Amino acid sequence: MKTKKLASVPTIKRLPLYLQIVENAHKEGKEFISGTIIAEELELEPIQVRKDLAITGIVGRPRIGFPVAQLITCIHEFLLWDKEHSAIVVGAGSLGSALMGYDELKKRGMRIQAAFDSDPAKIGRTINGVPVFAMNDIAQEASRLGSELAILTVPPDVAQTVAEQLTSAGIYAIWNFTNTKLKLDEDIVVQREDLSSGYAMLSVRMKLRLNQT
Amino acid sequence: MKTKKLASVPTIKRLPLYLQIVENAHKEGKEFISGTIIAEELELEPIQVRKDLAITGIVGRPRIGFPVAQLITCIHEFLLWDKEHSAIVVGAGSLGSALMGYDELKKRGMRIQAAFDSDPAKIGRTINGVPVFAMNDIAQEASRLGSELAILTVPPDVAQTVAEQLTSAGIYAIWNFTNTKLKLDEDIVVQREDLSSGYAMLSVRMKLRLNQT
Repeated sequence: MKTKKLASVPTIKRLPLYLQIVENAHKEGKEFISGTIIAEELELEPIQVRKDLAITGIVGRPRIGFPVAQLITCIHEFLLWDKEHSAIVVGAGSLGSALMGYDELKKRGMRIQAAFDSDPAKIGRTINGVPVFAMNDIAQEASRLGSELAILTVPPDVAQTVAEQLTSAGIYAIWNFTNTKLKLDEDIVVQREDLSSGYAMLSVRMKLRLNQT
Repeated sequence: MKTKKLASVPTIKRLPLYLQIVENAHKEGKEFISGTIIAEELELEPIQVRKDLAITGIVGRPRIGFPVAQLITCIHEFLLWDKEHSAIVVGAGSLGSALMGYDELKKRGMRIQAAFDSDPAKIGRTINGVPVFAMNDIAQEASRLGSELAILTVPPDVAQTVAEQLTSAGIYAIWNFTNTKLKLDEDIVVQREDLSSGYAMLSVRMKLRLNQT
């Protein structure tokens, strides 16, 4: 699926950061928060923050800022985080297990219903509250549970085969933590999560710092 | 640290994807690879690929493409992945453990020397080949090991305090997997890794798909 009709990618990726700051303001009992305050917190330009937040439909008040409670609702609705996303984890290794226990995802509507692994020692057990099934049961269980989304953390060499099984079972979105470019039908949403990209950024910035000092 | 003097962030983040494709071509015995082939594989525009790769200093040959072995070297050198980065993991929970066992990072020069945790059940043990020390030993051990980089996977409420301890111990770069905006000296490199951003992208794309069908 091409990213047509999508708001700017960097804007969408910043929304969770805004959300966190605005939720903290809410906890502190604040009714309004200015774009300038949010910008300072995140080291962004205020104009950028206002532009980003505008895509959620929120309207700020001049010299007062954004209404906190409403801004939280607007971001949630824009991201569809006001709804539940039913998910399965495929590959119950350490990364898969980490994601099953990741509270931030739970808070944002993700409901991990089941995990799948080929290791007999894991099958039938529960990891972070999530029951682990055999890899062979994916089709049956994912259909039964009506899962929408699969978090894929299997070894790269089986990623494509497993992904095809998932889409056959009715899964239409894959959060791909494997190192493999999946080739699937255009109407399947595949979001690739690549820790190497973050490491690349970190490395370049470490190099720049070394060159500067 | 501001991102001044940095090549474009999206460009840097794409370099690991290019590297993976070029390494596969190398394994298959190919001597040259064209920008168009790389672009097709990643669903990018060829002009984008050529522009991105140019920052590494590689020079392609018209109608033949890039020399594969040399391109691998150029990307490695640009990312400083030809050198070792000595690292510690702070917070040996499931995410920290997953990162300790993540081969992709090892392949890219990261040497995880030690992990730190406050859980007595983990201290003194080895996780994925990495020895786990007590949290209180960070200053001593990080100095002794000469670690450059810390991977921070502690709970958010202690992230700031721990980060300050790390910088006191000589760590100058932090890969921050916590949900906390760290406030540190300008010369400390902090790279934030936010899984919520990926989830936000995924959610918006799932929403668009639902609206389209």
